[in-house]
Amino acid sequence: MGIVITAFERSPDGGKGLARDTRVRWALEETGQPYDVRLVSFQAMKAPAHLALHPFGQIPTYEEGDLALFETGSIVFHLAERHPGLFPTDANARARAITWMFAALNTIEPPILDLSNARVIERDQPWAAERLPVVVERIRARLTQLATRLGDSEWLDGDFSAGDLMMVSVLLRLRPSGILDEFPSLAAYVARGEARPAYQRAFAAQLAINTAPQSKN
Amino acid sequence: MGIVITAFERSPDGGKGLARDTRVRWALEETGQPYDVRLVSFQAMKAPAHLALHPFGQIPTYEEGDLALFETGSIVFHLAERHPGLFPTDANARARAITWMFAALNTIEPPILDLSNARVIERDQPWAAERLPVVVERIRARLTQLATRLGDSEWLDGDFSAGDLMMVSVLLRLRPSGILDEFPSLAAYVARGEARPAYQRAFAAQLAINTAPQSKN
Repeated sequence: MGIVITAFERSPDGGKGLARDTRVRWALEETGQPYDVRLVSFQAMKAPAHLALHPFGQIPTYEEGDLALFETGSIVFHLAERHPGLFPTDANARARAITWMFAALNTIEPPILDLSNARVIERDQPWAAERLPVVVERIRARLTQLATRLGDSEWLDGDFSAGDLMMVSVLLRLRPSGILDEFPSLAAYVARGEARPAYQRAFAAQLAINTAPQSKN
Repeated sequence: MGIVITAFERSPDGGKGLARDTRVRWALEETGQPYDVRLVSFQAMKAPAHLALHPFGQIPTYEEGDLALFETGSIVFHLAERHPGLFPTDANARARAITWMFAALNTIEPPILDLSNARVIERDQPWAAERLPVVVERIRARLTQLATRLGDSEWLDGDFSAGDLMMVSVLLRLRPSGILDEFPSLAAYVARGEARPAYQRAFAAQLAINTAPQSKN
């Protein structure tokens, strides 16, 4: 029973690895699971067939036999729970890895997403330039706390886990803004994530799709 | 080995149940786990002892023997995994319940938090009034999709689960704005959550703290 995920036919980032299928590809590679990819256009993402899989009309989705999931947190968790490689075996350490998954998605990512709102979606609004520093300061406050906790550790809690996979993936979105590089220990943490062979394979796979000649179908 | 959570000494909402300890109290009540509460002031939340428990200086935290967790998603997951009452026994249904937990926290809550930013934190900024409709429209778009998926079901996927607990908790934050009531099926869904005896006990417990005479220590 093969695993099938969905990804953008063409990612808005042109293959920088910031689309969320990269997180799922990375988890699949860390856990050694083969998978197929079904590409969807922006139009198809809003059509009933895709909305049945993903009620919010986004990518990625995850299908495995009669199981269908959405939300990268849920998909990464599912893989981490079933296959070795992303969760520690100690019960308390596993609970803390799950804590970092939620921290990445509910505490660190929201202010980072707000930067996309401010820079892209609200770019032409009259308040855009004036509001941007407020948004950036909110991100800096969170990253200061995160850098304090990370200290000079390699990963957030012991060995690399699904919590690091998610945190690195969320922080990666900040690189184009230059904010990540204001925090050298976090930039180095992200670079350690990107250096993992599983990440490299995930990145290369999404890049190949986004740089392939566009098909005509 | 008792469970100890932290909560605001005085919640900014005055006891409306919107502080995040209510989510954890609710999960503790659904799973029948006794717990103690340690109240923390805003000052104490930023002090080293609390930051050791919660690197982002917030409440709630969760301690149980030598396990310390933060992030409501992680704490509710921990309880749901260990005690009956919040996860279905079928593996696929459980994976979907976890999906709804992440959807509540990573897809639905961020635009709702942005409303707090717009209405409270950025209230005195020159762009506040002009930007508010953009923020509200973003919430409406998500709630339209959520209402479509819920349809006329009682809960998001079969029986009440930790996914519903989290989604109801997130949607509750919208009630003061009036936006929730624009979606009658979602307002009824939230009301079903609030009607559960476990929620009632959780709500009453946080209200008692927030309406008690202030101590002098």
